[in-house]
Formats: sequence, C-alpha cells, structure tokens
Amino acid sequence: VTVSDLTERELVARIRERLAPPPAWMLVGIGDDAAVVEPARNRQEVLTVDAIVEGIHFDRRFTPPDAIGHRALAVNLSDLAAMGAEPRLALLSLALPGTLPCDDFDRIVDGLTALAKRHRIHVAGGNLTKSPGPLMLDVTAIGTVKPRGALTRGGARVRDELYVTGTIGAAAAGLQHLREVEEPASERMALCVQRYLYPEPRVRTGLLVGRSRSASACMDLSDGLADAVRQVAETSGVGVHIDADTLPIEPGARDWFAARGADPCVSSMTGGDDYELLLTVPPRRRRSFLAAARVAGVAITRIGVCTAERELQLRGAAVDSSSGAAFPQGFSHFR
Amino acid sequence: VTVSDLTERELVARIRERLAPPPAWMLVGIGDDAAVVEPARNRQEVLTVDAIVEGIHFDRRFTPPDAIGHRALAVNLSDLAAMGAEPRLALLSLALPGTLPCDDFDRIVDGLTALAKRHRIHVAGGNLTKSPGPLMLDVTAIGTVKPRGALTRGGARVRDELYVTGTIGAAAAGLQHLREVEEPASERMALCVQRYLYPEPRVRTGLLVGRSRSASACMDLSDGLADAVRQVAETSGVGVHIDADTLPIEPGARDWFAARGADPCVSSMTGGDDYELLLTVPPRRRRSFLAAARVAGVAITRIGVCTAERELQLRGAAVDSSSGAAFPQGFSHFR
Repeated sequence: VTVSDLTERELVARIRERLAPPPAWMLVGIGDDAAVVEPARNRQEVLTVDAIVEGIHFDRRFTPPDAIGHRALAVNLSDLAAMGAEPRLALLSLALPGTLPCDDFDRIVDGLTALAKRHRIHVAGGNLTKSPGPLMLDVTAIGTVKPRGALTRGGARVRDELYVTGTIGAAAAGLQHLREVEEPASERMALCVQRYLYPEPRVRTGLLVGRSRSASACMDLSDGLADAVRQVAETSGVGVHIDADTLPIEPGARDWFAARGADPCVSSMTGGDDYELLLTVPPRRRRSFLAAARVAGVAITRIGVCTAERELQLRGAAVDSSSGAAFPQGFSHFR
Repeated sequence: VTVSDLTERELVARIRERLAPPPAWMLVGIGDDAAVVEPARNRQEVLTVDAIVEGIHFDRRFTPPDAIGHRALAVNLSDLAAMGAEPRLALLSLALPGTLPCDDFDRIVDGLTALAKRHRIHVAGGNLTKSPGPLMLDVTAIGTVKPRGALTRGGARVRDELYVTGTIGAAAAGLQHLREVEEPASERMALCVQRYLYPEPRVRTGLLVGRSRSASACMDLSDGLADAVRQVAETSGVGVHIDADTLPIEPGARDWFAARGADPCVSSMTGGDDYELLLTVPPRRRRSFLAAARVAGVAITRIGVCTAERELQLRGAAVDSSSGAAFPQGFSHFR
C-alpha cells in the first residue's frame, strides 16, 4: 500500500491522529484554508523555514523513515534555538512520491510528531502534494522571545569569547559511516551514527542562554562550525581566533577521520549536520552564561575569542602547518 | 549561467534586491537563523503553507518563470483571502534544479515580489536548496484578522445563500489551451490563459467581506467549485442545492468545453486553479454582504442555497440528465 492508494484527506487524518491535542490558543487548526491562532502576549515572534530534500539532505537507502521526519523538524527547532526562542507552532508541507509506502509515511510522521511533543511545538496546518521526484519535507516553525530577547548573529564584539555546545564532527563521521560501511558500527561510531540520524536541537540551551541575556551572538552549526564562525564574524564585524586544540571533537569522529588520513580538526569544523550552537559571550557575562548552560545541562567548550583584526585564524598544535594558514570553508549547497 | 554557478548568498542577494523595504515591525529580516517580528496588536494570526511542484502544479514548457513565482504566492494569498485575513508576511522555501538559468530564477522572484508588493506582504525569510529533480516553491503566508473575524468553512447554516466571486472554468480552459494548442489564442481564450497563468487572489474581497461579518463561511476554489461546495457543506453539516443555470462560467471556457463535447457546467465546476471565493451568506445579512462586495469591486453571483437535506444537488436546464444526478467530484492530487 502506497500513499497513492489514499486520498489527501486520509493522509491528513493519519497525521492528525499522531498529534498532541491542540492548545487553547489554536483557534482553527488543521482542516480549513488556513490556521488561526491567538498570538502569545508580550512576546516577539521568531519564524523560520527549512526544507530537507531526498538526495540532497538525506538518503532513503540508509535513513529510517522516522529519522527523516525527526530531521525535518529538528533543523527548524535548531534555528529557533539559535535565536533563543521558545517553540510554539509548526506548519508542514510534504511532497510525497506516489510510490512511498504508507508505512513509511506513518513512520516519517511518527518521527516528526514525537520530537514535536517533546518540545511542545504544535502542528497548526500544512500541505500535502505528490512529488514527481524526490521526497521533500518543508517545515515552518514559529517560536517566541521576550521583547529584545532574540539572539542574532550580529552582536559579537572584540574580546567576546566563543563557545560551542556539545561535540562536533559526530554527524559528519556518522554519515560517512552509513554511506561507506556495511557492517554494524563500533560503540563509538554508533554514537556518531545516532547523532547524524537523530540530531537533538539545543532548544533548552538557546532558551536559557537567551533569557540570561549573557550571549552577544548565537548561530547553529547546521552548515558546520567553520561556516558559523565565518557568518558570526562577518555579520558582527569582528575577526575570530579559534584554538584548534580546544575543539570538542567527538572521539569516534576523531578516530574515523584520522584513520582516513583526514585532518580531524578541519573535517569536524566543515562537516555539517551537527546542530550544536556557536555562542559569543562578553567576558563580564561569562559567569551568568556558564550558569545558564549548567541549568540547561549542556556541555560547553570555550574555543576562541573575537579579535579586532578582521580575519579568521585557526591555530594550535592540532593544526598541521599546511592547512593552518587557511580557515576551512563551510559547506554550501550551491556551487 | 545557471543557479549552480552562484553561491546561496548570491542567490539570496538577488531576492533581497527585489523586495520592498522591510517595515518597522520586522525586527530581524532575511539573513539570520530566523526572522523576528513584532506581532500586530489586537489581532489574531492566520497561517497557511502551500507548495507548487514542477510536473504537478505547473509545467515549465509553457509557464513563463514570472508566472511560476506569481502562482507560488497567489495560492497562499488566496488561502488568506478565504479566511478574511489581511496579508502580512511570507517565508519562501525554494528547491532549485542546478540547471535552472539565473535569468529564470530572477524572473521567478520578480513574479513573486511584484505580487507581494501589490498586496503589501513582506518576505521575512526563507530557505534555498538544490533539488535533484523538480523545481519546487513552498510559501508560508501569515495574515491577521480582528478577534473572531476569521471566515471558516464550518459556519454555513440551512437557508444561507451561496455566492461565488468572478467567473469559473477560465483557468482550466486556459491550461488545456496551453497544453494542446500551438497557435496563439483567440481574444476570449487569451483571457482564460491569462487567468490560468496569473491568478488574482481575492484578497480585498475576503478582507472586506470578513470585516462586514456578513458571510457565514468561505473557502477558495483552488481545487474547483465542486470540491469547495462539498467541503463547506460537509464541515458545516448542511446540504447544498446549486442552480447550474446561474453558474458564472467564463465565456471563453464555455466555448472551449462545448467545442470538445464536454459539459461546460461540470468542467467549470471541477476545473481547479480558479482562485475565486465561495461564500455563504445568511439571508438577513445579504444587504451588507452585497455592499462589501461592491466596495471590493468584485462581481458576485448567487449560485444556490444551503439545505437541511444533507446532500449535494446540481439542477437546472444547463445540466443534462445523464450527469445531473451525481454532483461532480472535486480534483485531488492523491488517488
């Protein structure tokens, strides 16, 4: 049984039965021309949209359906996290190949709705269409922040310290393992595979750090740490000095890259899909920042500092002299 | 030169230069992890998402790029219109085949931004990705209504009158002409082709009728009049009696369908893409409804009435006895 055997209405019904009950502020939910909601009081709204496309962002041959649904929402929650926003509602737009098995459809929706419930984000509506080619999931996510509480990319100042949450490189190594290796992964690599398949957006960290007003800028690592550093530096008008020896590279990823003759530093900085947060913190706010991170229960690592000299530098014993001169390029879907 | 020759940043810059200046309530626009906006005061929010997919909703062989961009936003504005909402902001998510010429990209964006400016809807952000297959445009549109001012599908009551704006059948006939005929269209058919390529969402009508509080239900005709009648009737729990002789069939469409041996009534009711509005109006509010429609400058036609007997009937001299018994089915992308 494929999605072509069902009507749009039947597919929508399968989504609805997997959702948490709608909150009181959702006045009109799924099923009309549009949704109607009561805005949150005394809040600003944070809006983002992100698509994941089969063949570009995921490969159905080694990505379980629930991981696809998980990812479609996770990438958007990560954008909300990077703004310090509290998730509120989502709209789903799905383009489905007619050959997609109904079981896979259900499991995709399961992966998405399970993550939605954990982060208390409510699906207010969406759109279903057939795709003549790849499976595509487009999610719009909306969150809220207190007035002037949003974390942007442009607030970093000279002498602000750079921090990153969690570890880096895990998703890139996990993806390579899924692509290249048939055998089951070692325990260390299984962790990387898991991090690739089920990224955990740092919603709580973004929210608590945002409320503490201790960070001057924030961005998620969806396109890798190198890209995030570059974007924050350019938008803020500062340079950045990264100490490569401090980078929190996931142990399994370090082994994986080293075994393939790749520089673990560069590979971990340029690999995408980590969905950690890069944060900049003025030295005088360090204490309140560390306290917020502690409450969020997230590991954070200081990896560098913002400089007046507007260039990006990667230094340290871990950097071999050949690649040390050039700051790694980020990942880009175009060109 | 194709989009593959440009970076994502360069493509985003080409979109930005085509947008109206951001309004004061847009606190963070394109370029960060997410947009930040100040909500409209004392308003409820209306949210919708709709995708158009190459090969399903449009064909690049006979659809000019600006018409593709126009359509991507128009279908969403039509959903806002059907709720009686005032357009406010949009998010764009585009999946682009690498072979898409940059000129086509620019013209797609031109078509979208020209319509956005006319309806004062501001693009707050979006997403660009490569597509390994079809061109896809996914637009999220957000509008506002006064508290309890949204028009839904479920408010029609027995004896309410049914009205439709403009004319029906034009887009379906225009699409068939584009598909089947090489020669330029006659003047009448050119109008149908234009209606297919550049649908005009009934934003002003929805807004004025919504504010007049004279309509009990409303829905747009994106999947055809027959589908809209069925949905409003089912959601409202009423039957509907349509007088086929009153249907405002576009003259060029009537000729086109009749010349091909098709029933103009049935073809016009089941053809999609018209983006007119179906409205139900309690008899006691007829006067204020007609006044609102007059101010909106839209032609409206009374086409039937809601009945206690919960079935859909199409009657009149225009209906031949063979098809008269069954109410036409709407258009569906699945099954």
